[in-house]
Amino acid sequence: MKEIYHCLHISAHLQEIYSALTDKEGLAGWWTKDVDVEGTPGSVSTFRFASGAFNQMKIVLLEPTRVCWECVDGHTEWIGTHVLFELSQDDEGVRVCFSHYGFREQTEYVGACSFHWAYYLTSLQKYCETGQGTPNEGA
Amino acid sequence: MKEIYHCLHISAHLQEIYSALTDKEGLAGWWTKDVDVEGTPGSVSTFRFASGAFNQMKIVLLEPTRVCWECVDGHTEWIGTHVLFELSQDDEGVRVCFSHYGFREQTEYVGACSFHWAYYLTSLQKYCETGQGTPNEGA
Repeated sequence: MKEIYHCLHISAHLQEIYSALTDKEGLAGWWTKDVDVEGTPGSVSTFRFASGAFNQMKIVLLEPTRVCWECVDGHTEWIGTHVLFELSQDDEGVRVCFSHYGFREQTEYVGACSFHWAYYLTSLQKYCETGQGTPNEGA
Repeated sequence: MKEIYHCLHISAHLQEIYSALTDKEGLAGWWTKDVDVEGTPGSVSTFRFASGAFNQMKIVLLEPTRVCWECVDGHTEWIGTHVLFELSQDDEGVRVCFSHYGFREQTEYVGACSFHWAYYLTSLQKYCETGQGTPNEGA
């Protein structure tokens, strides 16, 4: 496996989830408080974490139900990988399918990323459903 | 991707984690309270969940640092898949690498399982570190 893939249900409006994935206030509400984001296609967002880790994600796709980033700087194993959020409305809210793909090898680091992404997707879920996520404090 | 792969660190003794993966009290402490387990190689454990879901896992490997189950009954997409826990001691505890492999297709259900496994692995981590996990209440 070179791909991380998580699906979850979020009881919120599609537009709220889209905002959480695309604007500065939203991203700071569930991933990391320390974020610089312009939010236009082709622009590069920077995310910094308390551990000292950081990554720069280029926005390669911005559609109402699909958001995709390409990692252009950060951890060696992340550079060149893509992060994709796919949203689909259902009766009770929105199904979010998340994938992080393009890793060169299946390493323990990728396994740790999979575990950590589930934590932050739970944070996204809480943020969209209650207004309160559990983002990283940032650098 | 047809494989779920998560790695995490648990600050506990290897033997405690092994017990949590192999005996009835341990498994009831983090996965589901509703478990029947004999615990010998070749035996079949049954796990039941509040949703009505269940699965039967045959113990195919029991080594001090590797435990593997094969799903012999339960959700159609699980039957024939394997769940593997690999433990390795490090300076501050144990690294746990978890994989669930052998799915025939990458479906949203597999993505949901990946997300849910991360929840239960967090429960395993809490159970081993504090004695208190967040297991399912069972059927």
